[in-house]
Amino acid sequence: MRDEFRNALAAAEDTLAELADGAAAAIERATVALLEADLTAAKTALEQNQALRTRLAELESNAYHLLALQAPVASDLRVLVTVVRLGANIERMGSLAAHVAETAERRHPASVVPDSLAPVFRQMGEVAREMAVDAAAALRSRDTEDAARLASKDDTVDRLRLDLFRQIAGDWPHGAEAAADAALLGRYYERFADHAVAIADAVVYLVTGVAAEA
Amino acid sequence: MRDEFRNALAAAEDTLAELADGAAAAIERATVALLEADLTAAKTALEQNQALRTRLAELESNAYHLLALQAPVASDLRVLVTVVRLGANIERMGSLAAHVAETAERRHPASVVPDSLAPVFRQMGEVAREMAVDAAAALRSRDTEDAARLASKDDTVDRLRLDLFRQIAGDWPHGAEAAADAALLGRYYERFADHAVAIADAVVYLVTGVAAEA
Repeated sequence: MRDEFRNALAAAEDTLAELADGAAAAIERATVALLEADLTAAKTALEQNQALRTRLAELESNAYHLLALQAPVASDLRVLVTVVRLGANIERMGSLAAHVAETAERRHPASVVPDSLAPVFRQMGEVAREMAVDAAAALRSRDTEDAARLASKDDTVDRLRLDLFRQIAGDWPHGAEAAADAALLGRYYERFADHAVAIADAVVYLVTGVAAEA
Repeated sequence: MRDEFRNALAAAEDTLAELADGAAAAIERATVALLEADLTAAKTALEQNQALRTRLAELESNAYHLLALQAPVASDLRVLVTVVRLGANIERMGSLAAHVAETAERRHPASVVPDSLAPVFRQMGEVAREMAVDAAAALRSRDTEDAARLASKDDTVDRLRLDLFRQIAGDWPHGAEAAADAALLGRYYERFADHAVAIADAVVYLVTGVAAEA
C-alpha cells in the first residue's frame, strides 16, 4: 500500500515537472506572439495553456483519489499537499502566458510592444522561459541548487521590469494605452517568474523540511 | 484522536475566516490610501498585510503539524489540503492590498488616481472589500449561496476594469506613468476579487465535493 502510494506520488511529481516544461513552452510561444505580432504563436500558447489546465485538473483529482484510497503517512502527505500547491503555481504560469498571448491577439495586426521596449520583453520572455525549465529541473532533481539559481534569475526579471518603468516614466511617445499594456505585460512576466521561484522554494521545503524565507 | 483532529480543523477554518476579514480590512485601508493620498492608511494596510502573513505561516505550520501527529481520514484530509490552499489565496489578497498601498506611498504627496478615475477605484475598493467579507462569511457558514453571490460581484469588478481601460484608451490627459499605474491598480483589484471567488469555490467544493467550473 505504502509503495503504491509512493509510486503514485513520484508519478505526480514527474507530471508536475512535465507541466512546468509546458508552461515554459507556453511563455516562449506567447513571447513570440508578442514580439512578432504572430497570431499562430498566440493560438499555440493559448492551446498549450488549455492543455496544461486539463492535465492539472486530472493531477489534482488523482491526488484527492489517492487521499481517499490510502492512509498516507505524514511525510507522504506533505509531498501530496505540495503537489496540489505546485499545481496551482503551474496553473497560474499557464494563465499568465495566456494573458501575454491574448494581449498580442487583441492588438493584432498592430504590435503591442514599441521597438524601444522589444529588447526588454525579449529578455523577460527568455528569462521567464528558463525559469520554468529550471523549476521543472528542480522538481526532477530535488536539487536545492537548482532552486538557488532561480532566485538570481528572478532578480534579472525585477531589473528588467524597472527598465520598463523607467521608459514609461521618461520620454514616452507611444500613448497611454501602450503604457498600460506594457505595464501589465511586465507584471505578467514578473508573476510568471515568481511562480517559478515558488516551485523551487517548495522543492527546498520537500528536501529539507524548512520553508524558504518569504 | 479523530475528534481532536476535527476540532483543530474547525479552528483552522475559523482562523481562515478571520484572516479573510483581515484582507477585507487591508484592501479598505489601501483604497483610502490610494484615493486620499493618505500615508497613515497606507502604513496601516502594510501592517495588516504583515500580520496576515505571520498568522498564515502559523496556520500552515499547524496544518503540517496536524499531519505529522495524526492519521487523518480522507474527508478530513481534503479539508486540510483546502485550508492550506485557501491560506495561499488569502496571502495573495494581503499582498495585493499591499501593492495598492505601496503605489499610494510611492506617488505621495501626489495622488495616483486622476479625479476622473476616482469613482471607478472607489467602487472597485468597496466591491473588493465586500468580496473578502463574503468569502469570510462563506468560510464560516459553508453556505454555497454566499459563494454564488461572490460570482456576481466579480462581474462588477470586471466591468469596472473595462471602464478603466476605456478611459485610458480614450482621451487620457494624465500621461503614460499614470496610465501604467491605473492599469496595474485595476489588475490588483481584479486579482484580489479572483482570490475571493476562489475561496468561495473551495467552500462549494468542501460542501459538495464537486469542484466549481474553472
